[in-house]
Amino acid sequence: MPSTFLITGCSRGLGLALATELSKKGHTVFATARDDPAPPLNELIENSQGLVKYVKLDVESRSSVEEAEAKVATLLGDKGLDVLINNAGVINWMSEGIDKMTDLDSMLHTNVTSAHVVTSTFLPLLKKGTEKKVANISTTVGSITTASKYSMMAVPAYKVSKAALNMLTVQYALNYAEEGFTFLAISPGWLRTDLGGSAADLDVETGAKATLEAIQSHGKEFNGKFVNIRVAGWEHSEGLNQYDGEICPW
Amino acid sequence: MPSTFLITGCSRGLGLALATELSKKGHTVFATARDDPAPPLNELIENSQGLVKYVKLDVESRSSVEEAEAKVATLLGDKGLDVLINNAGVINWMSEGIDKMTDLDSMLHTNVTSAHVVTSTFLPLLKKGTEKKVANISTTVGSITTASKYSMMAVPAYKVSKAALNMLTVQYALNYAEEGFTFLAISPGWLRTDLGGSAADLDVETGAKATLEAIQSHGKEFNGKFVNIRVAGWEHSEGLNQYDGEICPW
Repeated sequence: MPSTFLITGCSRGLGLALATELSKKGHTVFATARDDPAPPLNELIENSQGLVKYVKLDVESRSSVEEAEAKVATLLGDKGLDVLINNAGVINWMSEGIDKMTDLDSMLHTNVTSAHVVTSTFLPLLKKGTEKKVANISTTVGSITTASKYSMMAVPAYKVSKAALNMLTVQYALNYAEEGFTFLAISPGWLRTDLGGSAADLDVETGAKATLEAIQSHGKEFNGKFVNIRVAGWEHSEGLNQYDGEICPW
Repeated sequence: MPSTFLITGCSRGLGLALATELSKKGHTVFATARDDPAPPLNELIENSQGLVKYVKLDVESRSSVEEAEAKVATLLGDKGLDVLINNAGVINWMSEGIDKMTDLDSMLHTNVTSAHVVTSTFLPLLKKGTEKKVANISTTVGSITTASKYSMMAVPAYKVSKAALNMLTVQYALNYAEEGFTFLAISPGWLRTDLGGSAADLDVETGAKATLEAIQSHGKEFNGKFVNIRVAGWEHSEGLNQYDGEICPW
């Protein structure tokens, strides 16, 4: 049955690819972006037979999120929002040591607080939805348990922010379990996007398809869990197990 | 052998108690606080035979941290700082649901970014020290793995901030392992302080003694670990195992 999705950060990368895959399957997607749609998103909207709707939303601005919610509520009429995907996020590479990190506050704001503001603002619409599902795009790089495996990746603020996002996911999961919600932290793998860079493991279409499969196949019994995508042939690459479709350690 | 410690947040609570215990054992303590010393800290300083030295330091202000570092460097002369205890922190109780949380940015700034700013600023002095140890005061409440055990504690921003602090601890541990550093996340238990409230498990003196024992007994082989304090008779109270002196799950 077609559902209604809202995805943040759809101007490019994983957000754009998720919107593309969902519209191919007949779902309605509120594709949000901070700026007016760039050509790829515009093209998707034009070819989607009305399934993909652009909504201006700057995750870093509470007033922008509230304006977007009002617009989505109007577009939905008496229906609810089924699934929210908090995908918008940033990464910074640092060539110097962690002691030179100057972006921790801004990274925490963009990757953690923004997900909270979006989630809390859309919660009333999600309560009216049929799936009551929120997927926070996390990363195995945000796993504290396996941090030593990723020690060569010089993105300390990003790692701290994703560990915090994981705890935020669990706190929402515990708060709304009784209302039938499913909150998931999803690691979409390392994708060839502007964020992931050209050396990444997977093309974004593969990552988006597997991410949607992870979101759709994990119901209430996985509320508050952190899961990998499953990609055939990549399950145990480099000993990281980041494409095995299993629960990730915190 | 006497060592030199710097502890943030010494105006009261755990910080004050840690400074008290350390001075009893002959260690030199730079006891920092945002404001001029209140009577309890003044009294400790006056009775410490010069072992406890007040240093003004507002963890939320980089310039204040830098000024404090300059003062400590002068006081140390050609010596280094042996142990840094990032103790300053805040908590907010919320009676409403997590969706009403408005303090996430400020909590992350105070409990996470401040620990980073203090650590990075004092790192040159720590490199000259004999122990090269940094203890970040965390909490089992910041364990994502055991979050469901603490679901009744309505402090979501605090929990998210402590999970982030744990990841920060691990990132520093990985960055400075080769230089002989030990970074620890320590759960001091639930103490009867202004932060912990009067219903807490342990008096602050018991908590401070056990916290120091945890800091002093965990060397380089525990770099990047998250440990509990050990308190006799409380090891497995309420099934939480938060006083068993063992490694805590992330």
